[in-house]
Amino acid sequence: MGDVMDTFAGRCRALAAKGARVVPEHHMKALLAECGIPVPRGILCASREEALRAAQLLGYPLVLKLTSDSVLHKTELDGVRTGVFSEAKLIEAFDEMHGRFVSEKVPGYLGILIEEQAEGGIELIAGLQNDPVFGPLLMVGTGGIFTELMDDVAFRSLPVSRDEIAGMLAGLKGRALLEGYRGAPAVNMKALVDAVDRIAKLGVETAALYESVDFNPVIAGTTGAVVVDAKMILVNNKTEPIAGYEKPRTQRLGSFFKPASVAVMGASSTPGKIGNVILDSLVNYQYSGTVYPINPNYDELMGIKSFPDLASLPETPELVVIVVDLARMPEILDEMARLGCHNALIVSGGGKELGGGRAELERTIAQKARELDIRLIGPNCIGSFDGASRFDSFFHSHERLARPPAGPMSFITQSGTWGCVFLEEARITGVSKMVSYGNRVDVDEGDLIAELASDPETRVIGSYIEGLGNGRKFIEASSMAVAAGKPVVVFKTGRNRQSAQASVSHTGAYGGSYEVYEGVMRQHGIVLADSFHELYASCEALALQPPARGNRAAMLSNGAGPMVNALDHFPRVGLELVTLGRDSVKAMRGHFSFFYIVENPVDVTGSATAADYEYVIKTLMDDDAVDIIMPFFVFQDTPLDESIVERLDALSALRAKPIVCCAAGGEYTDRMSDALRRAGIPVYPDVARWVAAASALSQWGRKIRNHGK
Amino acid sequence: MGDVMDTFAGRCRALAAKGARVVPEHHMKALLAECGIPVPRGILCASREEALRAAQLLGYPLVLKLTSDSVLHKTELDGVRTGVFSEAKLIEAFDEMHGRFVSEKVPGYLGILIEEQAEGGIELIAGLQNDPVFGPLLMVGTGGIFTELMDDVAFRSLPVSRDEIAGMLAGLKGRALLEGYRGAPAVNMKALVDAVDRIAKLGVETAALYESVDFNPVIAGTTGAVVVDAKMILVNNKTEPIAGYEKPRTQRLGSFFKPASVAVMGASSTPGKIGNVILDSLVNYQYSGTVYPINPNYDELMGIKSFPDLASLPETPELVVIVVDLARMPEILDEMARLGCHNALIVSGGGKELGGGRAELERTIAQKARELDIRLIGPNCIGSFDGASRFDSFFHSHERLARPPAGPMSFITQSGTWGCVFLEEARITGVSKMVSYGNRVDVDEGDLIAELASDPETRVIGSYIEGLGNGRKFIEASSMAVAAGKPVVVFKTGRNRQSAQASVSHTGAYGGSYEVYEGVMRQHGIVLADSFHELYASCEALALQPPARGNRAAMLSNGAGPMVNALDHFPRVGLELVTLGRDSVKAMRGHFSFFYIVENPVDVTGSATAADYEYVIKTLMDDDAVDIIMPFFVFQDTPLDESIVERLDALSALRAKPIVCCAAGGEYTDRMSDALRRAGIPVYPDVARWVAAASALSQWGRKIRNHGK
Repeated sequence: MGDVMDTFAGRCRALAAKGARVVPEHHMKALLAECGIPVPRGILCASREEALRAAQLLGYPLVLKLTSDSVLHKTELDGVRTGVFSEAKLIEAFDEMHGRFVSEKVPGYLGILIEEQAEGGIELIAGLQNDPVFGPLLMVGTGGIFTELMDDVAFRSLPVSRDEIAGMLAGLKGRALLEGYRGAPAVNMKALVDAVDRIAKLGVETAALYESVDFNPVIAGTTGAVVVDAKMILVNNKTEPIAGYEKPRTQRLGSFFKPASVAVMGASSTPGKIGNVILDSLVNYQYSGTVYPINPNYDELMGIKSFPDLASLPETPELVVIVVDLARMPEILDEMARLGCHNALIVSGGGKELGGGRAELERTIAQKARELDIRLIGPNCIGSFDGASRFDSFFHSHERLARPPAGPMSFITQSGTWGCVFLEEARITGVSKMVSYGNRVDVDEGDLIAELASDPETRVIGSYIEGLGNGRKFIEASSMAVAAGKPVVVFKTGRNRQSAQASVSHTGAYGGSYEVYEGVMRQHGIVLADSFHELYASCEALALQPPARGNRAAMLSNGAGPMVNALDHFPRVGLELVTLGRDSVKAMRGHFSFFYIVENPVDVTGSATAADYEYVIKTLMDDDAVDIIMPFFVFQDTPLDESIVERLDALSALRAKPIVCCAAGGEYTDRMSDALRRAGIPVYPDVARWVAAASALSQWGRKIRNHGK
Repeated sequence: MGDVMDTFAGRCRALAAKGARVVPEHHMKALLAECGIPVPRGILCASREEALRAAQLLGYPLVLKLTSDSVLHKTELDGVRTGVFSEAKLIEAFDEMHGRFVSEKVPGYLGILIEEQAEGGIELIAGLQNDPVFGPLLMVGTGGIFTELMDDVAFRSLPVSRDEIAGMLAGLKGRALLEGYRGAPAVNMKALVDAVDRIAKLGVETAALYESVDFNPVIAGTTGAVVVDAKMILVNNKTEPIAGYEKPRTQRLGSFFKPASVAVMGASSTPGKIGNVILDSLVNYQYSGTVYPINPNYDELMGIKSFPDLASLPETPELVVIVVDLARMPEILDEMARLGCHNALIVSGGGKELGGGRAELERTIAQKARELDIRLIGPNCIGSFDGASRFDSFFHSHERLARPPAGPMSFITQSGTWGCVFLEEARITGVSKMVSYGNRVDVDEGDLIAELASDPETRVIGSYIEGLGNGRKFIEASSMAVAAGKPVVVFKTGRNRQSAQASVSHTGAYGGSYEVYEGVMRQHGIVLADSFHELYASCEALALQPPARGNRAAMLSNGAGPMVNALDHFPRVGLELVTLGRDSVKAMRGHFSFFYIVENPVDVTGSATAADYEYVIKTLMDDDAVDIIMPFFVFQDTPLDESIVERLDALSALRAKPIVCCAAGGEYTDRMSDALRRAGIPVYPDVARWVAAASALSQWGRKIRNHGK
């Protein structure tokens, strides 16, 4: 293989050197054939005589294709003839095409590729893409008009396993076509997976060469799969930078969470000012480290001594929180280096979001920090919180933003707003670490997740993402967390595809799309959520309840409506409404009044007591068909007595199967829900969060099982 | 036309009389041709000689089709040959098919239909369906494999306007195919709409005959649209009953909301029992009518006189609330009739949900009530609430279920649970009427919506639906409300398609599906929501804010994340992110510090004050490009002062454009949100509700504008 690749790479470099963007089809086909990827036999012909000789070798019917190293869309130049059945037709077609391309001086014209015509089958598309976020990717999709009209595509990062490839195909809406549609025979799946597997391997070996490669169409039939056309777009100076490999860097990150001492550069005496609120939080609440206000205008602030600069401090602070103008950072970094201080958290905005010189300033700061071995969070963020040390860098008063107790969940977020909301949602379950990292000039998502992967106080990691800086690093760090037994839950927003710009390849058109994020993240065992609140619900369920052994859910309620609603969500979140075991139904039938409905979903009716709920949940725990137990409570119903809390507490403590609850209403309902939450039982106020939490336990359970294999 | 129809109807009756289910294709084609719907020319042939004569008349290429009045799927019998180009091929194909159908004794075999082959174009499907819920429906969809794999279909109830038909086609995912895809020419839309319009008219005229009709495929080309195949499934004794026409009945419904006197049959002294809780709510809270407990075991209950039966009461009560066994209803109805009492609200369950004799009992009760001129709500429900009279029939204590103040929203619901939650969500905005109607033996959704359409206390009507009893009545009542200027908001659940049972027609396979509900409800100006909480949010926004003049939304926030999330929802809910007018941008640019982002969405950053929000909102109100103003508040941010409430109150009072807000967090955020709600400004705690509410104002605004035309 090495020789083949070397020759091909040499060809690509030669093409690139003369400014070509596209590897001509006949070169691509030769490469594919060498790699064992089935292609139609074909011969590049520059004259009628060559064409007739080719026809004799290949046999009719034939396909004629314009071949050029510059033309991106040959159909736009009317450059394809199919179904050429006879010598007369061949001569007619060849002469017309060849004559036209020569006289029209088609750029980079090399001749007409004459190919045997592939047999019929199901049209697919495959692709390779060197993604700015995730590096080399594999794409497969249903072909023809499906690809564009229906967005029926799947992505994985390379390398990729055969199992993943089979999963990609099985996840397509068009899979019914592959399985044999309207009486057509099923395609040969092994041969199809083989072909895609070889394409994936080619994608790894040639990653340095391409911006993207389209294999379009790939025709899957009953005997094999054939790549009918292939087009490689070479990397060149117009190519967006491709995600490179960078290891997560966790050095010194601990100081952002449990600093023994903190200097606040820009501390202020003016109530409401950022430098005032941050100081207030550090000085007047539970943080027990030493705090040094820095502001040359004061001798004292909030009853403690204030200092004019870092150099005047009696000790080197472990962390500097910075709220002064970003322009001062270079000088501050120099001073920190002199003093041996290695951590700065820059709350101040005014960075690259303003463009121009400010973006340049950020680059200077980043470079300087690297050179001086200083880790930076920010700028343009609200910073970090640690539930155990009670450190935080927030410019939100405690009156307005209640800090949660220490707990098992950590959250890293591109949005400070959702950071605040996460903390307040967690008022009972509690938080280990929260970080809003802003413009991430140094510390990024990948670094933070790697740090949390080995943090003994963190059981679950949530991540809110608008766009990733380095996706490969993020994936590596998340894989470390997953390997350490910690689920990573992601809500990725910014999902609307950018207005479809003219793209040189089908595959490339998906750059940065949610399809790419979704495919790569699922591939690496990341749990996905569809809103911030579903993300929070998922984190909480994963922190409190055991993973589910499967996706088979059973619901019960004293009010059926919300269970019907939940069923509407089941296909979206991958849950299955299980048929209960015969023993369960029989037991409940014998135990309950005749008007209780004892099939799944179980309707214990408005008459249900806490003991009734307990009986059903015990029955479901003993039923091997059930993986997840989902009670809905109408706490407003009079017969449902308050012993439900202690009964559920006891059942949940068995940790036999996950229990995820839902209840909606007013003050009384909130009080009851809180009582359950305090017992470690998650309760959600709407149906979407309820099913998302159950789905997270199922997704995580599947990941763990696959990992164990 | 009348004669054509009479002939065709006669043929159908004759076919039905001899047990046929299907109208043979050549009869259908003849009918379509008579109705001006383009079909290929064709001749039914029973011998080779006839076939050859037909070919001479029609010209090649030809299509041969098995014709039978019994075969539902002719392709399953290998009953179609296309592309027959020559006499030799015709003889070969005809002999093979005809010989096989005769020797295999294909049921109802009539011969081979020989047709001219239609020209190429885009494949669509059209259909007619006599729906059990909505009566006659029209369906159009993208054809071929799209129909089944992608569910790309649209429904409307008949009759339907040409504009609606154009809208159905424009709403298909496959519309790109119609507009000219990959360089193909666009289809002739006028001709296509013409053909579908004639199909719709045929659907009205022949409604008594069919269970469903498939027009599959309809080939739309550059010149016209041709129905290539048509199949009518006749009504027969296996056909589900088709929704008939029934007028909404509002007689005496007022007594369920403002009864001057109420008897509680089954009142109890045992705390927690249903008959106790209901009595407690009527006697010990704000309801000021006369209450009569009925229970032969007591002389007194809760300090008021108790009676042994209805006959012993000092007056005829306006309403009887019933919590005794349903089996006693026939006798109770007789007694009510004797006394001249016309309203009963049956809370008791134990009706048709138990099947068997209980379903029969319900039918008896329903019939008796009709005969005796007694209106019934229930059984198996929590009954009704009236915000003004403070009457309710709930078996939920006031401690557990807080009753809201009187307000502009009414809600009718198939789920008592969501009824309770609606009341508690409305603790500030208030409720006019709420009804949980249970098994609806008499009063149903249509009756209630018609009543609310003329209720001066109701400004908006919400409806939670699992399945409708009489969809045509529901639509008529909703249209009355819409005509009266009252939006109707529906959340329809139970959306998962029933496991695709073998269906005799494509169109019929969608019976009861969400696609049908969605199409028919949108057609009649009903606002749709995707969850209970989105329904509540929509009702509240419509009750408090003016309708939007369009769907062009502008967002502003002191924290950008949630605005990015909202954008992900915009395509789902039909909102558009508008580009602000140049004057607006210029004004904000001049007014604000350089780091505020003054494009839509507007990011006033964490530094934003209440005055900053006010300035942006005023600017947006003056900007003609903007229809809806959507502020998100990070109330946790220190600079955002509490004068925001009075400033927003003043802006909202102008009623120039709708304002819909979002804010999430803990206690402080809740307090601030409540202060805004008290000023009549809706604030939602998550992004999904926020965008749903904005969408509702846009949907309703469009309906009003179209109505005005």
